[in-house]
Amino acid sequence: MVSAPRWLAALTTALGLPENKGQIMYQLASVDANGNPHVRTIGHRGFIEPEGSPNLPLLMCATDIRTPKVTQILTNPHVELIWWLSGSMEQFRLTGVVRLVPPPDAQLPDLPVQSTEASLAFQKMDAQGFEWEKKRVETYDVQPAFLRAGFARPPPGAIIENYDVGKSWPGIVPRAEDAQNEEEKQAYERGLRTFALMFFDPVEVDWVQLKEKPNRRTKFIRKGEEWSEYIAVP
Amino acid sequence: MVSAPRWLAALTTALGLPENKGQIMYQLASVDANGNPHVRTIGHRGFIEPEGSPNLPLLMCATDIRTPKVTQILTNPHVELIWWLSGSMEQFRLTGVVRLVPPPDAQLPDLPVQSTEASLAFQKMDAQGFEWEKKRVETYDVQPAFLRAGFARPPPGAIIENYDVGKSWPGIVPRAEDAQNEEEKQAYERGLRTFALMFFDPVEVDWVQLKEKPNRRTKFIRKGEEWSEYIAVP
Ligand SMILES: Cc1cc2nc3c(=O)[nH]c(=O)nc-3n(C[C@H](O)[C@H](O)[C@H](O)COP(=O)(O)O)c2cc1C
Ligand SMILES: Cc1cc2nc3c(=O)[nH]c(=O)nc-3n(C[C@H](O)[C@H](O)[C@H](O)COP(=O)(O)O)c2cc1C
Repeated sequence: MVSAPRWLAALTTALGLPENKGQIMYQLASVDANGNPHVRTIGHRGFIEPEGSPNLPLLMCATDIRTPKVTQILTNPHVELIWWLSGSMEQFRLTGVVRLVPPPDAQLPDLPVQSTEASLAFQKMDAQGFEWEKKRVETYDVQPAFLRAGFARPPPGAIIENYDVGKSWPGIVPRAEDAQNEEEKQAYERGLRTFALMFFDPVEVDWVQLKEKPNRRTKFIRKGEEWSEYIAVP
Repeated sequence: MVSAPRWLAALTTALGLPENKGQIMYQLASVDANGNPHVRTIGHRGFIEPEGSPNLPLLMCATDIRTPKVTQILTNPHVELIWWLSGSMEQFRLTGVVRLVPPPDAQLPDLPVQSTEASLAFQKMDAQGFEWEKKRVETYDVQPAFLRAGFARPPPGAIIENYDVGKSWPGIVPRAEDAQNEEEKQAYERGLRTFALMFFDPVEVDWVQLKEKPNRRTKFIRKGEEWSEYIAVP
């Protein structure tokens, strides 16, 4: 019987602590075509796993297909993320590969496909017929209306004249069935065409606990289906 | 007359807000020799600038010379950092190059030196005779004794039998002049031999303000000595 790795229990426990309330953001690092690093804050959108494989948990997040990080992860799917939970003073660093689930009609850069040696979980979910596109639309729908609005704006990073230009963008975008008029309906559709999911498959986890004295550091490494664990100097 | 860039004023203002109290940590991303990204939380240790060049502010932080990030930044000095200030809901992303100031006797990996095209500030400080080693020792000395102790431990990342092994490490390391015995004196010296400074010279800053409605995003880019600024879609 396979079971969930101990780091996942530690992370979900930490997330459930009152002192970590609202700390559902982490920093995701990727590399550009020149080999230089980039990092940005991203909101966590939940864990998911292949059926019958609690040992292969994925982290889900979302982004706008028009942002630079998308080209970066398509060029090099190896990423690392840091989740610093200041309430309990724990740092989780996760290393692995990411898979993009873009809108079906997205115009993506034509890039050489890199091998993703750690994509065991993705392979399993493909084999199980996981409906990636359905999950994308569902995730677009369940988010708060102000977040959905972020995807219906002009291209992120585009230069604008002044801050007031943003007043013409929708502040909230209701779901399709709640749209009051044609404008809201179009904004919903526009956002859906830029909304992409990212699934992150970790193969290494570095857990630091700064509240413990002496401080603790635990490393988890996955080889194939198996997680091993060792204790290290912080 | 050169003056400080507006992003620095925005960042120091944000750091001074009561709602951001204690948020002196950021996430620093670097790239390893395989071209894969790494990221970790780092504590800010202050701003510094070449004399007469408020337009070229550097960020200072510290690390243990034995950690993997050191080889990474020596291989590729291009780094990026994210400073998320959750109190005021502002994100500062800084892109630039980093210079390491290692202990003079440190055994560093022998690596091809990369060009650091953005090192204007470093060049100026070198020309001004800035005493990097003096700054390193001063910074080692002014930090709290529990932080100093972190540098006198066995090599970070080394595997240990169990968490209790850490109980044999010093929990605090007083300054040399306050050492009570030979053991504390040796721990002070040991830490000083692993304590390295990192100076970060930003050439690009991406400032996102999520409390503003509509959200604001401002980009700053330095060309030579000059910062230019433009407003962008978040
Ligand atoms: C608190 C916070 C949460 C964010 N969450 C996300 C997110 O979930 N997805 C996303 O793409 N960008 C998110 N952003 C914006 C990113 O940090 C970044 O500015 C933007 O995605 C552009 O990144 P890129 O230029 O590296 O592609 C968030 C920013 C902040 C400050
Ligand atoms: C809140 C916090 C602050 C930290 N500050 C630093 C720091 O200032 N310098 C440092 O080298 N590591 C610091 N660390 C530890 C790093 O995040 C990381 O675990 C360690 O430096 C090893 O990084 P590396 O393996 O990427 O080199 C801090 C960790 C936490 C959780």
